[in-house]
Amino acid sequence: MLITLELSTSKQDEWKDITDKVNDALRSTNVMDGIVVVYCPHTTAGITINENADPDVVTDVQMRLHEVYPWDHPRYLHMEGNTAAHLKAITVGNSQQIIIDNGELVLGTWQGIFFCEFDGPRKRTVHLKIIGAK
Amino acid sequence: MLITLELSTSKQDEWKDITDKVNDALRSTNVMDGIVVVYCPHTTAGITINENADPDVVTDVQMRLHEVYPWDHPRYLHMEGNTAAHLKAITVGNSQQIIIDNGELVLGTWQGIFFCEFDGPRKRTVHLKIIGAK
Amino acid sequence: MLITLELSTSKQDEWKDITDKVNDALRSTNVMDGIVVVYCPHTTAGITINENADPDVVTDVQMRLHEVYPWDHPRYLHMEGNTAAHLKAITVGNSQQIIIDNGELVLGTWQGIFFCEFDGPRKRTVHLKIIGAK
Repeated sequence: MLITLELSTSKQDEWKDITDKVNDALRSTNVMDGIVVVYCPHTTAGITINENADPDVVTDVQMRLHEVYPWDHPRYLHMEGNTAAHLKAITVGNSQQIIIDNGELVLGTWQGIFFCEFDGPRKRTVHLKIIGAK
Repeated sequence: MLITLELSTSKQDEWKDITDKVNDALRSTNVMDGIVVVYCPHTTAGITINENADPDVVTDVQMRLHEVYPWDHPRYLHMEGNTAAHLKAITVGNSQQIIIDNGELVLGTWQGIFFCEFDGPRKRTVHLKIIGAK
Repeated sequence: MLITLELSTSKQDEWKDITDKVNDALRSTNVMDGIVVVYCPHTTAGITINENADPDVVTDVQMRLHEVYPWDHPRYLHMEGNTAAHLKAITVGNSQQIIIDNGELVLGTWQGIFFCEFDGPRKRTVHLKIIGAK
């Protein structure tokens, strides 16, 4: 019951709503009760759960995170130049967990699950682990 | 074993210590060994685990998060005007997990579980999911 | 299956790669499928999963977090003077979960599990809880 999603991103900062993919994966397992762990195996991308109704929320969050963790900084040492992406990944978190009840994800009305690219464009993967009972 | 707590907040920034409520919920289930997932279904509030001994810690954390993620910003686009609350919710996280051992939450000496309101006052809910064995 | 690691840190800001210790603990349990929860019972330290290849990543992240959450601030009230460490611990998170598949941690190529000291030097502990099946 380890399921791996394949994603590709087209910009440096790009959040992709993967809620439907997580729902599809859950249904394929017939688990009725438990949790799903959504895990990003990358160090310059993360997973968050937040509003997916107004896209301006994501735009605003990306904008302010970019100001708090700027791409260029006179004291960054890391040769790849993507320290900011590591900082953002650590801040949003590299995994999230969602409760499963009656075979459904228990998400709030305005919540969606986002893959957060901070160093794209790239090909990426997301692992889903479902813990529970049928 | 999905338990939902009802909370109400009276200020824009208000952290409520819900450790006792989580403990009560755990005891009602008789689970001896596992984890409890504490999940916030809202996008402008979160859950964190931190010091509940000196209330100045929470005050200081709220103050500095307010400076890092200001309520007003010339570049925010989101019409509701609460982008800062989304940023804070993403930073602290919208769920936490606590280990259960011998029927007890394994919290550190100074740790409490907080519901973090960032856009109150509101009525809110918190979901608890207990995964484990009796 | 609650395993406690003992650590000691020698600087105020010090991240220790505990991936090998988590792997050793997992192998001692013979669990083949599930998740491991890595939990920090302290309020001025945390757990993150990020790059362990180039040590400059950790140095850069520590440097920028120190700027965003400065040690001294005219408005901090907390008498112990370590509010910044609480802010950093809340930001990185006080626990992480890693998927177990075929008896192995499912970590990305560049990912390591770090204990993040923000108020050292101190003696510290980390709890590991393994949820799963043999």
